[in-house]
Amino acid sequence: MKIRPLHDRVVIRREEEEEQTAGGIVLPDTAAEKPQQGAVVAVGDGKPLDSGEKRALAVKEGDRVLFGKYAGSEVKVGDETLMVMREDDLMAVLEG
Amino acid sequence: MKIRPLHDRVVIRREEEEEQTAGGIVLPDTAAEKPQQGAVVAVGDGKPLDSGEKRALAVKEGDRVLFGKYAGSEVKVGDETLMVMREDDLMAVLEG
Amino acid sequence: MKIRPLHDRVVIRREEEEEQTAGGIVLPDTAAEKPQQGAVVAVGDGKPLDSGEKRALAVKEGDRVLFGKYAGSEVKVGDETLMVMREDDLMAVLEG
Amino acid sequence: MKIRPLHDRVVIRREEEEEQTAGGIVLPDTAAEKPQQGAVVAVGDGKPLDSGEKRALAVKEGDRVLFGKYAGSEVKVGDETLMVMREDDLMAVLEG
Amino acid sequence: MKIRPLHDRVVIRREEEEEQTAGGIVLPDTAAEKPQQGAVVAVGDGKPLDSGEKRALAVKEGDRVLFGKYAGSEVKVGDETLMVMREDDLMAVLEG
Amino acid sequence: MKIRPLHDRVVIRREEEEEQTAGGIVLPDTAAEKPQQGAVVAVGDGKPLDSGEKRALAVKEGDRVLFGKYAGSEVKVGDETLMVMREDDLMAVLEG
Amino acid sequence: MKIRPLHDRVVIRREEEEEQTAGGIVLPDTAAEKPQQGAVVAVGDGKPLDSGEKRALAVKEGDRVLFGKYAGSEVKVGDETLMVMREDDLMAVLEG
Repeated sequence: MKIRPLHDRVVIRREEEEEQTAGGIVLPDTAAEKPQQGAVVAVGDGKPLDSGEKRALAVKEGDRVLFGKYAGSEVKVGDETLMVMREDDLMAVLEG
Repeated sequence: MKIRPLHDRVVIRREEEEEQTAGGIVLPDTAAEKPQQGAVVAVGDGKPLDSGEKRALAVKEGDRVLFGKYAGSEVKVGDETLMVMREDDLMAVLEG
Repeated sequence: MKIRPLHDRVVIRREEEEEQTAGGIVLPDTAAEKPQQGAVVAVGDGKPLDSGEKRALAVKEGDRVLFGKYAGSEVKVGDETLMVMREDDLMAVLEG
Repeated sequence: MKIRPLHDRVVIRREEEEEQTAGGIVLPDTAAEKPQQGAVVAVGDGKPLDSGEKRALAVKEGDRVLFGKYAGSEVKVGDETLMVMREDDLMAVLEG
Repeated sequence: MKIRPLHDRVVIRREEEEEQTAGGIVLPDTAAEKPQQGAVVAVGDGKPLDSGEKRALAVKEGDRVLFGKYAGSEVKVGDETLMVMREDDLMAVLEG
Repeated sequence: MKIRPLHDRVVIRREEEEEQTAGGIVLPDTAAEKPQQGAVVAVGDGKPLDSGEKRALAVKEGDRVLFGKYAGSEVKVGDETLMVMREDDLMAVLEG
Repeated sequence: MKIRPLHDRVVIRREEEEEQTAGGIVLPDTAAEKPQQGAVVAVGDGKPLDSGEKRALAVKEGDRVLFGKYAGSEVKVGDETLMVMREDDLMAVLEG
């Protein structure tokens, strides 16, 4: 079974927060709105524009992304908890 | 008797939440906004755009979809409770 | 005397809620926002668009429609209570 | 002295509410938002559109209209109390 | 020294409220939002549109206008208190 | 060091309020939202429009302007406190 | 590892507030919304417009910028705390 997010929504596999990750990104304990990190599992086919066209999303499957602490909703697929949110809730892609 | 949803609204037959469904999707107990699952029974003829055109919906009859816990309104048709909501309240389609 | 609703407004004759209607639609007692049912008595000449054009409404006189519990305003014409609301407050048309 | 409402505003002479008017329209005592009835005294020259054009109003001097209880502001001209409101606050025209 | 209001703003010299003015306009004591009356002293060069164009204002210097009680801000020029507000806060022009 | 405001923002050097200024503008003590006065120090290169174009600002360096009491943010450059705000927070230019 | 901000977001390395910086910018203690200062580390590829086009950002890597006290979210990369915010949260660029 697969989840196909609609329009400008994306499905994210959240990564556990650690004090110091391998790649060097550490999420601080004290920030008011602490962003969270995850991997993109699936993306919608684009954000609908007023013109009737769609704008393709700026992230793709496999991208590691940062998103706000209160963004999106959780769903469980099998034993795994995934997140569904809008592209606009994503703040940045982690590269390299 | 049939329900024809207007514009960008859809009619959904909600599926009972189970600990572990056949297809493997489990809805968690603890999520703040727990998405719910159902089958699309009918869709409107499209979302009106400012141009006067309509954008066809991205879901069709028979699709299994996820939607927010507080999305839409309930109606009973015969003995059955259905949901009416906007396409924008749908988060994802479950496939396969 | 006749009521001509303006733009995207419609006039509705609300049907009494029953446990089980002839056509099989039953409105539940417990839903948070319980939709209500009625017949369209008159429709406006369309929703004005930014372009200056009007979009004709998707319902017509005689349609049986569902609308939200808190939608619209009541007016009495003679001995009869009617509702005036916007087309956007209508959720679906009941057919057949 | 005359009042010329600006853009999409209209001036209304409110009619007293009665239990049963000659024309048969009765405004109910119990509705949460009870519409009120009046005659259009003057209309603005149209609602400005983003294009720079104006959309002529859908009501004209002499029309009897329904409007929301909390719509508009009162002004007194001579001994008479008039209302000024936007066309969008008008719900319907009473005809015949 | 002169005040040049920006864009769609206007400068108004408020007229004292009287029980019964010469021209016959009386502002009532009891209205929830009591409009006030004044003379236009200066107008901006137009409301900017999304197209980059400007829409000229519908009032001009010398017009007597009605505006909402809580509209605009006060400024004193010399010994005189003036009001600065947006054209959209003006409800009507008093003519004749 | 120079401050270059972005887009439709402007930098203002606030003038001290006096009972009666040389030019004759007095800011009243009692107004609910008391406008303040200052000189434009720098302006952004224009407000971005939906079309992708920019609309040049209506004020320029050296203009004396009125702005709302709660508009903008303070920054200190050297020993001087400046304000940064959007052009839309400016109400009028004082001329002559 | 690198952070690539999405669309109109920027990544900022915040500079410590001092009583008097070398360049002469001092952030006051008492302002209600005290702007903060930092250096741009990375910028998104532009703000999406309704037309489907993107508008390039007005700041670039290396720019020193002012932003609101409550703007953005913190992320730690290695030992360093960075900020992610939208270009619209930036007020001005410090030059020279």
